[in-house]
Amino acid sequence: MSLHISREHAEMLDKKDPIACKRDEFFIEEGTIYLDGNSLGPAPKSVFDSIDVTMREEWAKGLIRSHNTAGWFMLTDTLGDKIARLLGAGQGEIVVCDTTSLNIYKTLHAALSMQPNRKRIVAEATSFPTNLYMAEGVASTCRDVSIALEGSDGDAIEDLIDEDTAIVMLNHVDYRSGVIRDVKAITELAHSMGAMVMVDLCHSAGVIPVDLRDLNVDFAVGCTYKYLNGGPGSPAYAYAAKRHHGKFTQPLSGWHGHAAPFKFEQSYRQGEGARALLCGTQHTLSMRALQSGLAIFDDVSVSELYEKGKALSDFFVSLVDGFADELGVGFYSPKDVNLRNGQVSLTHETGGYAIVQALIERGVIGDFRQPNVMRFGFAPLYLRYVDIWDAANHLHDVLKSKEWTHERFNVVATVT
Amino acid sequence: MSLHISREHAEMLDKKDPIACKRDEFFIEEGTIYLDGNSLGPAPKSVFDSIDVTMREEWAKGLIRSHNTAGWFMLTDTLGDKIARLLGAGQGEIVVCDTTSLNIYKTLHAALSMQPNRKRIVAEATSFPTNLYMAEGVASTCRDVSIALEGSDGDAIEDLIDEDTAIVMLNHVDYRSGVIRDVKAITELAHSMGAMVMVDLCHSAGVIPVDLRDLNVDFAVGCTYKYLNGGPGSPAYAYAAKRHHGKFTQPLSGWHGHAAPFKFEQSYRQGEGARALLCGTQHTLSMRALQSGLAIFDDVSVSELYEKGKALSDFFVSLVDGFADELGVGFYSPKDVNLRNGQVSLTHETGGYAIVQALIERGVIGDFRQPNVMRFGFAPLYLRYVDIWDAANHLHDVLKSKEWTHERFNVVATVT
Repeated sequence: MSLHISREHAEMLDKKDPIACKRDEFFIEEGTIYLDGNSLGPAPKSVFDSIDVTMREEWAKGLIRSHNTAGWFMLTDTLGDKIARLLGAGQGEIVVCDTTSLNIYKTLHAALSMQPNRKRIVAEATSFPTNLYMAEGVASTCRDVSIALEGSDGDAIEDLIDEDTAIVMLNHVDYRSGVIRDVKAITELAHSMGAMVMVDLCHSAGVIPVDLRDLNVDFAVGCTYKYLNGGPGSPAYAYAAKRHHGKFTQPLSGWHGHAAPFKFEQSYRQGEGARALLCGTQHTLSMRALQSGLAIFDDVSVSELYEKGKALSDFFVSLVDGFADELGVGFYSPKDVNLRNGQVSLTHETGGYAIVQALIERGVIGDFRQPNVMRFGFAPLYLRYVDIWDAANHLHDVLKSKEWTHERFNVVATVT
Repeated sequence: MSLHISREHAEMLDKKDPIACKRDEFFIEEGTIYLDGNSLGPAPKSVFDSIDVTMREEWAKGLIRSHNTAGWFMLTDTLGDKIARLLGAGQGEIVVCDTTSLNIYKTLHAALSMQPNRKRIVAEATSFPTNLYMAEGVASTCRDVSIALEGSDGDAIEDLIDEDTAIVMLNHVDYRSGVIRDVKAITELAHSMGAMVMVDLCHSAGVIPVDLRDLNVDFAVGCTYKYLNGGPGSPAYAYAAKRHHGKFTQPLSGWHGHAAPFKFEQSYRQGEGARALLCGTQHTLSMRALQSGLAIFDDVSVSELYEKGKALSDFFVSLVDGFADELGVGFYSPKDVNLRNGQVSLTHETGGYAIVQALIERGVIGDFRQPNVMRFGFAPLYLRYVDIWDAANHLHDVLKSKEWTHERFNVVATVT
């Protein structure tokens, strides 16, 4: 046997899994072990019929009337309220719209608009890159705004927050390593210095408990196509704490953020609450797919998911630990499961990309991130312990056999 | 008989219609006369299967791999190139992404970035409102940028363009009246003053011939859910003339506009050509639906569509002219079909909104725009001359019988 723990042990763990039944709500093809739910969640079975109804009844028959009769127009709010329940936010504090990048731009501007005398954006050099690009975008048109990056010259984020800091932009979970950041502590510090905090929840929403009220952040953003299973390119969301409602402005002031979009007034008049973060017309089919993804959370708590996710990911670490040294695998993520979300990133000196490709050919789908990181996500809604065992076993075999060195695994595709 | 032209005449016109067969490519419910394709186009029949394949094969089975294998990642460009063929643009000059509002923001900034010494945005007071709101958004964060509006104090747009004008923002077709603007002449004038032009094609693309190279505008934007039949909230597009590629910047600098999105570099490095107008991850289901809408244009020319659209709309004007004075209907659109796109807007002193509601109950779907405008769009791809006759006949009957005065037609919905 190649692994030091038996597959029967994994089967036993599955039998005791209290939320094992949730897997049935997803379409998972026979032979696929999907460890990339942290990039794109799989399809909820209910989405096929739901989108069919949206197309055939709401669009084809209802036509323009469905903006009212099918509630299209208010999906930004109704879906936002559903997400709010997952994130410890209040009703009316979250809207679903646009993309994470755009919502970053809006919330950075919102924070700057409330603090005209503060001109600094503080961020992590290890941030998901688009967050930094959007901050650059903000700075490019606002003459005095500058960006300070944690880590770029050794500074800790705590040392960068000062009386000129308007907003601290954090990633709740690091996209490469899965490490969870102590957002609450940084927010306390930032607030004590008079600065605000915006947090990116892309890699935490739906997989680790998030309580926005407890974290006490000012703004938040996130995508929905990862652990919320909203489908490819499903719309993002933006959170503005109720205490700031009516007090900020942001320059993506499109008609859906207007106080009366269908009055067709000549000048912008900002809508109420988080609706001031809306801009243009949203993508209805993509919104409806997200609705199917969110419905899966109706009868399961994120705490239950977190516990299972930790157990899955701990199990993977134990299995890989049995052959890591022998086969040249390193741990990029911390081994301590309490420090990270349900993701484990490994390294391999020369084979990272090719090993991921060889695993994909075997049906084990993870992904690769520059420069040498192999990411494996352990989404608790649909993964079984036997999947983890099989994945670790395939990884062992790909490494042991040097299968990954075949040239077909070393052709780089556009998106990895 | 209530109308002065017979229904048999309409039937005869349908028999002679060379593109009558295109109607079969849409789902149009029996009893529905859809005159609101200028708000939301109807569903192409091919979209049902296409989206089903996208969901069941590409998403559910292909999972993350479909970004490459199904071409998701490049839909921004492949769909942009399809639209380019309809608009007389070159390959690589148009990307499909985000919303019209956002693309207005990007292209206004792009024009400003190329002319740092010019600070004025010139626009029409009668513009679709979100265009003005986005210009306000640009001005709100760029200290010296100001907006001059045609019509607000009697000035013609030609008189507002001066040596401080960075960009003139035009609507190719007025959304209320359908009147076509002479974009080419204004562009010539603007260029002679050293200013640029951005044109909104929402109400012209797919229904009147547009030749962006001939118009010689610098930037253009448009939506796809009207005459391009991309479905509810389908993504918008943005055009940047090739001569400007590599020369502008815009602040919505998200990772999809990066020269190498998956290298995850720390700083933004702008992508090539029109790709510099991309920002975040696009909404795949909505992109795919648009693909079905665009496919319908593969074997029909916009010139043919324009001719039929003019004939349909002329026919409606003739029919309504027979009872307009008697029943209190005015023409908001010019009667001369050469001055407008395939849309006819009527007025009624007190009943505008309610008349539209009464018509909708009879299956004749138009829409209402403040303060008293009843809009009827005549999309040539799927409307028949008998539909026009029946619509005019219903309008006559609703007015003659005063049916519209019933209270059920006077309850205002959210979106009209």
